[in-house]
Amino acid sequence: MNQLQQLTDRIISRVNANLSEFNFDTEMFVKNALDHEKMIKFYAFYGITAHHPIYFNFKNSNIGGSYFLGKCHVGRSAIYKSDIRGDELKRKGDNIRCAKDIPLVEDEMIVIRDSLLYKTLVHSNSHNPECPEEFGIRNTVSAHYANIHGSTLEGCFLGPFATVDLMNLHSCVVGEFSYVQTGELFHRKIDPGTVWLRDGNFEFRYTFDNQILDDFVGVNDAFQPRGKIYDFVNEREKRYERLFDVMNIEPIDAPESSAVNRYAVVDGNVSIGKNVLISQRAYLDNAVMGDGSNAQENSYIINSTLEGLNITAHGGKIINSTVGKGTFVGFNSFLNGKKEAPVQIGEGCVVMPHTIIDSDSPLQIPGNHLIWGFIGSKEDIENNTISLDDLAEVRDSVQVGKMKFSGKGAVFIDSFKKRVNAILLANGALFEENSKRGHAQDGQNISFNFIQPYRTGERAGLYPSIRIEP
Amino acid sequence: MNQLQQLTDRIISRVNANLSEFNFDTEMFVKNALDHEKMIKFYAFYGITAHHPIYFNFKNSNIGGSYFLGKCHVGRSAIYKSDIRGDELKRKGDNIRCAKDIPLVEDEMIVIRDSLLYKTLVHSNSHNPECPEEFGIRNTVSAHYANIHGSTLEGCFLGPFATVDLMNLHSCVVGEFSYVQTGELFHRKIDPGTVWLRDGNFEFRYTFDNQILDDFVGVNDAFQPRGKIYDFVNEREKRYERLFDVMNIEPIDAPESSAVNRYAVVDGNVSIGKNVLISQRAYLDNAVMGDGSNAQENSYIINSTLEGLNITAHGGKIINSTVGKGTFVGFNSFLNGKKEAPVQIGEGCVVMPHTIIDSDSPLQIPGNHLIWGFIGSKEDIENNTISLDDLAEVRDSVQVGKMKFSGKGAVFIDSFKKRVNAILLANGALFEENSKRGHAQDGQNISFNFIQPYRTGERAGLYPSIRIEP
Repeated sequence: MNQLQQLTDRIISRVNANLSEFNFDTEMFVKNALDHEKMIKFYAFYGITAHHPIYFNFKNSNIGGSYFLGKCHVGRSAIYKSDIRGDELKRKGDNIRCAKDIPLVEDEMIVIRDSLLYKTLVHSNSHNPECPEEFGIRNTVSAHYANIHGSTLEGCFLGPFATVDLMNLHSCVVGEFSYVQTGELFHRKIDPGTVWLRDGNFEFRYTFDNQILDDFVGVNDAFQPRGKIYDFVNEREKRYERLFDVMNIEPIDAPESSAVNRYAVVDGNVSIGKNVLISQRAYLDNAVMGDGSNAQENSYIINSTLEGLNITAHGGKIINSTVGKGTFVGFNSFLNGKKEAPVQIGEGCVVMPHTIIDSDSPLQIPGNHLIWGFIGSKEDIENNTISLDDLAEVRDSVQVGKMKFSGKGAVFIDSFKKRVNAILLANGALFEENSKRGHAQDGQNISFNFIQPYRTGERAGLYPSIRIEP
Repeated sequence: MNQLQQLTDRIISRVNANLSEFNFDTEMFVKNALDHEKMIKFYAFYGITAHHPIYFNFKNSNIGGSYFLGKCHVGRSAIYKSDIRGDELKRKGDNIRCAKDIPLVEDEMIVIRDSLLYKTLVHSNSHNPECPEEFGIRNTVSAHYANIHGSTLEGCFLGPFATVDLMNLHSCVVGEFSYVQTGELFHRKIDPGTVWLRDGNFEFRYTFDNQILDDFVGVNDAFQPRGKIYDFVNEREKRYERLFDVMNIEPIDAPESSAVNRYAVVDGNVSIGKNVLISQRAYLDNAVMGDGSNAQENSYIINSTLEGLNITAHGGKIINSTVGKGTFVGFNSFLNGKKEAPVQIGEGCVVMPHTIIDSDSPLQIPGNHLIWGFIGSKEDIENNTISLDDLAEVRDSVQVGKMKFSGKGAVFIDSFKKRVNAILLANGALFEENSKRGHAQDGQNISFNFIQPYRTGERAGLYPSIRIEP
């Protein structure tokens, strides 16, 4: 136990050293989130298939509750209840697209060292041209339900429900419920509730009012998450336990071209179309998953219909809603329809990451719109959406409600559409006989391996060194 | 799947090459015992504690259903449902007692290569002075419920319910239900149902009648086990399934100094005394386990009382019986009392390995006796027991019924008593505050790790390479 304590203390001091310029102290975030006694009883998981390259190496670490798929090297870290998905790691010879193509000289690997990720999702589609063979997460603490999505990190803190997307961060603090996709950031502190996208051609910015954050995703006096979105996930936490208690789960009925991960919750009346991907820790209850739609990790689809080719990004929550064909629902969005006040979103929309819809009367948003921010009533729709056609006309800048966009709207839309298509392709939504295989096809027949730490002695809570190769 | 098939074929051909002088073919034994489709769905297990040295290395193998504890290296082998217990491996610097003490230059390790052990128990207390750092099992096939007990093997076949004990075997066939403890054997074929112990000072020999073997442990036309003992274990096989289906098992009530392995079946009214060891795959149903008694792997204690300091060796079966204090019940013994015909065995007895007691009327065997062979009625007691006092008087030889003993009886008894004491010590039966710790104390708080093979592709059924170190 002593060594687990030392490990935690070391990580805190290293991360704090990186963030000293902000006077930012991660100690209370970490200490109040971890229960060392419980960590001794946790299991960790890794998945093995014939389709993914494997190489796991765990050393001097606690990896309790985590789920690993693909090539990972974890050393001197505590990876508490995280999902580490290495199924989009690049292989030797692959090119990373930059000004010039950069070929990889060996397979890419996720490398996590002296970091503490608690209930954080890591997705491997990285975009760091400086070290394409290594997806690194170093000296970083990330809190409950943060998403590290294709982003290398060094000396960072991510608050609860924060998302960093396809970028590289050095010595940054990302506040709770903030979403950043801005290429690269150094020594920056991002305020809570910031939704910020930027590349050479455009910039999108929206910041939630403090009062909305207080209501939906805040941090309490003990530096732990609070608010409606946290309560929502917390109330459903128990439902996952059985999945982890039982070795063999009855498989869920689904077409051959679809994958339902055995660590997904599937309740009520659920219909699963072709080329559908239900990821680990997705939660379905009375859901219609149209052909080619997906529910990614930590997403919730409850009393809702996805009409087809829908992406529900990590942590997206869709409740009492109908989502039109091809509509994308971004990270950690909370579409909180009610039985008597359902939400209807048309076809081909883009629901920006970290969007909150929570109204007491029914809402309809027409197709082909960009949707963001907070929509608490019909009246909010105007200030939190724009038709994609109108946005495509923007050449310089536009402001809608609190959202500021600058750059070329058409480029922004085009890059989004390309990305959506790439995700559908990667997920196997476009699978046809023998072509366009993706996660929905390759993620079937995963073998799961459960590993447990020492239960007593100096090393209690730490895992033995484990190396797994093909 | 293809590679699993190749692995099986390779093992068969290598073992057969070793046994060609006997015209012995293991093919049908192996092929009819294995169901490759099922082997894809199996899990393997290994245990980790703070008290046992660990080093596991699995490579190019199927290890489905197995249970490992301690240092093991398994390569190119199929270890189907075996238990591999490395908790008595010697450590660097330990001495092996021979004419002269031989110190170990590194920790001992179990090394299994190109071997196929199906439902076989391996226990690590080896006695091979030629290679004390390596407990090797090479090019060997062993069948259902065989026991490899502290015995290195090369090019051997062990039939169902055979036991090799504290010895070294080279190119031998050991028939079903045979027990051998004879130091070292080369190129020998041991007939089924032979119980044979030999060292420099004495020899003990008993051979079961064919008719008894037919009735209790035979081999059928498909080269698979048959008979009452096989039926007995087979009928109870299902009861273990739940243990392997569920991740967390409610711990069984037991004193602090006792260990009940979470892979033991515990049913009915069971009372567990102090310093008691219940090993994995032991089966207790209405049992009183007196202080310092144990139920080792694959043993069954049903409607019975063990009065204390009792050893039930691997595969021992005690049904509707009372076993007096300090009495030892050897490997694979079958004390098949009935409700209306219970078996009562006095204090300080030695029930030899592979003893069968199966009577329709009640039986009582007084204390301080050696018991062997087949006892089917009161009348058989005389020909299958001898008082230890009488045996101690023997200086040259004695024959009782079909049992032949030669050598010094007192030496035989003394070596048995020493061994029983060593086992009690190793098992923690003699534990007192802070001294004489053994398996009952060190086998608590085991972490279990579950690993699964590839489910599809060329390697379906094989496990990835896994290396575990402290």
